[in-house]
Amino acid sequence: MSSISTDQADLQATRDASRKSWLASANDAHSDFPIQNLPFGIFGDTRNPAPRAGVAIGDAIVDLSALAEAGKLTLAQGGAVFAKPALNDFIALGRDVWRSVRIQLSALLEANCPTLRDDAGLRARALVAQADATLHLPVEIPGYTDFYSSKEHATNVGSMFRDPKNALLPNWSEIPIGYNGRASSVVASGTPVRRPNGQLKLPDQERPVFGACRKLDIELETGFIVGRGNALGEPIACADAEDHIFGMVLLNDWSARDIQQWEYVPLGPFNAKTFATTISPWIVTLDALEPFRVAQPRQEPEPLAYLRHDGDHGFDIELEVRLRPADAKEASTIARTNFKHMYWTMAQQLAHHTVSGCNTRVGDLMGSGTISGPTPDSFGSLLEMTWNGQRPLELASGGTRAFIADGDSLTLAGWCQGDGYRVGFGLCEGTILPAR
Amino acid sequence: MSSISTDQADLQATRDASRKSWLASANDAHSDFPIQNLPFGIFGDTRNPAPRAGVAIGDAIVDLSALAEAGKLTLAQGGAVFAKPALNDFIALGRDVWRSVRIQLSALLEANCPTLRDDAGLRARALVAQADATLHLPVEIPGYTDFYSSKEHATNVGSMFRDPKNALLPNWSEIPIGYNGRASSVVASGTPVRRPNGQLKLPDQERPVFGACRKLDIELETGFIVGRGNALGEPIACADAEDHIFGMVLLNDWSARDIQQWEYVPLGPFNAKTFATTISPWIVTLDALEPFRVAQPRQEPEPLAYLRHDGDHGFDIELEVRLRPADAKEASTIARTNFKHMYWTMAQQLAHHTVSGCNTRVGDLMGSGTISGPTPDSFGSLLEMTWNGQRPLELASGGTRAFIADGDSLTLAGWCQGDGYRVGFGLCEGTILPAR
Repeated sequence: MSSISTDQADLQATRDASRKSWLASANDAHSDFPIQNLPFGIFGDTRNPAPRAGVAIGDAIVDLSALAEAGKLTLAQGGAVFAKPALNDFIALGRDVWRSVRIQLSALLEANCPTLRDDAGLRARALVAQADATLHLPVEIPGYTDFYSSKEHATNVGSMFRDPKNALLPNWSEIPIGYNGRASSVVASGTPVRRPNGQLKLPDQERPVFGACRKLDIELETGFIVGRGNALGEPIACADAEDHIFGMVLLNDWSARDIQQWEYVPLGPFNAKTFATTISPWIVTLDALEPFRVAQPRQEPEPLAYLRHDGDHGFDIELEVRLRPADAKEASTIARTNFKHMYWTMAQQLAHHTVSGCNTRVGDLMGSGTISGPTPDSFGSLLEMTWNGQRPLELASGGTRAFIADGDSLTLAGWCQGDGYRVGFGLCEGTILPAR
Repeated sequence: MSSISTDQADLQATRDASRKSWLASANDAHSDFPIQNLPFGIFGDTRNPAPRAGVAIGDAIVDLSALAEAGKLTLAQGGAVFAKPALNDFIALGRDVWRSVRIQLSALLEANCPTLRDDAGLRARALVAQADATLHLPVEIPGYTDFYSSKEHATNVGSMFRDPKNALLPNWSEIPIGYNGRASSVVASGTPVRRPNGQLKLPDQERPVFGACRKLDIELETGFIVGRGNALGEPIACADAEDHIFGMVLLNDWSARDIQQWEYVPLGPFNAKTFATTISPWIVTLDALEPFRVAQPRQEPEPLAYLRHDGDHGFDIELEVRLRPADAKEASTIARTNFKHMYWTMAQQLAHHTVSGCNTRVGDLMGSGTISGPTPDSFGSLLEMTWNGQRPLELASGGTRAFIADGDSLTLAGWCQGDGYRVGFGLCEGTILPAR
């Protein structure tokens, strides 16, 4: 069965909609992790808490280290990269290796393959229940950049904070606007988020006051992980940019709107964003997302030459935001949107990021910017949903929200809907602790 | 002689103005590296190119690895940290260790200490001529933040780009404004800098064009290196902040003014800055800078409580910018200023950075922001010196400059002037290569 291959036909077979696994939970139409997905992450479990590489399948995790040790997963470079507490060294081996591992795993997990299915001892060593696992940040993140690529979001924010008549700034339709974020405070899903303190400028006072953020918000984003960097001074061409992407995650760019509004001119948001950014723990590879490729929105004016690419570079990823107050049993879905609305593509973002010569590194995280759709129930932030707090949301679980309350749990979910299966991202969750 | 101590009297002795070294070049009144300085860096040499830790003294470098191996430098944790290609692991050992190493080195290099002076074999192993060495980045930089803390610079830029009547924005005098920079493109002095390409918005055209930056500039800054980080959610108090600083470097925040002006609203500078940031190779410790502590400028209005600290937190550091055209034999000094003009202190910058709960890590680089003095010959950028190109500089070597030309070599220099000696930073140099 498993052989080292990066053959296109073998790769195509990993995405076959009719493919099933011998692991029943992977064949559930609502599982985020069918055999067509195989996302990579870093986990530890109750038996062995050491963080190491795994791949999600149904309600389980394949322990890549254990599988390599048993000789069932073959890497020319050896399996030691899977024992590391971050995926960077594995990712740095290059796309042929990612693909070979994907193809080998897909074969091992396929319904008719007896290797793991019929070997109880090997299964006990190499399969861990997700319920017994702790998920960590999948990569060490050398750099974090956040873009601003939803036209609807930029228009909404421009209307509120600047001029509704000229909501979209002239540079927005020429540049995939982005800024450097703070990599140190990127945390894995499930990490509690402390409400930040900072300077607040109240309308009735001449000087700012110091205190807890009163307008705590989410930003529904995705992020991509750089799989191949570029050297300083050597830009990545737009046409080649997707070859530099390992995969995608969900990203919540927590935002303190009151701190942001006072601090952001002229150098951009800082303390309003640096207190935490949460990402989902599984990196869904571009290879798994390939069947869900769609055209990006029409770009008018036509971008400058360095931002042009042929073909389709959007992805049809359904996205949801859920809010559960501390005292509620169930979460309320407060927004539904789709990644396909994004104006600037990931390839354009990466081409623009590097066109000045800026270097990127394996593991760099690039946030999409808030993903807002055209209607209020598809907006990706409370700022937009409640129009800066003026129109509080009614929660299905009872109560209202202008912004996030202490104890609220916010969850992002995302998936590509296939025929009878979905390629999902797992959850991106954070619960708010009161300010210090 | 060398014993493990962090005694205040021993530490004070390392700074004694009358202290001399047996290494004659260290006693030159114009050397940046007298026995009172002892800055840390990472070097390799012609005999052994492996990057490792060193301390500059006169025209030489003390190889800390070699000294530890010879048993002449004692660390409870062992000398292996000195063999690493970055100082992070050494710095992470904490201030008591930095101080103990400083005290031991000062004793070993002092005129009357025979240990190294009289042992030709040991000197051959543990002293390397700076002329034979290549200097590398001293630390691996997990995060780079750039502040904007010179009132004169912020006023000049505000006058040019916004409104001369309200040049200083209302938040500037309340917040040590800063933004996240790009850590990946921080390079060591001597690394050539490629002129960036990017989007330029010319006044007579409706749409931007793509091309090489026409307004390439420097920003004269210093930077500090975080020596002790803080956990996410646990701010650093202003009164404790200097304890978290390992030392300082010179920093040139290369800037593409035309790219910057078109891209920076609303999220701040990005491609205009991410193509390169050059730092000087030696980290001058706060312990070496202590004799040059001065009062910061009076802050009016009084800062909010979390930004208050007693005592003096400025440093008297003389700074120069030199420009040498490709065809010139000598550099022209185009600006002279002083770090003591900085309005916001390093302690206030770090307290503000973390007050939201943002975590910092050992090796983080925090830029001061352009250091401009009150007069045009003390401005820290060509943007200000030439008032956005309107008043080109006359170079002493002949020719004029509105902005930087290809082939120009730009050098920052800085030192604290003591009585008969100077505690210097070495040079921070970069030469411009033409755009691709």
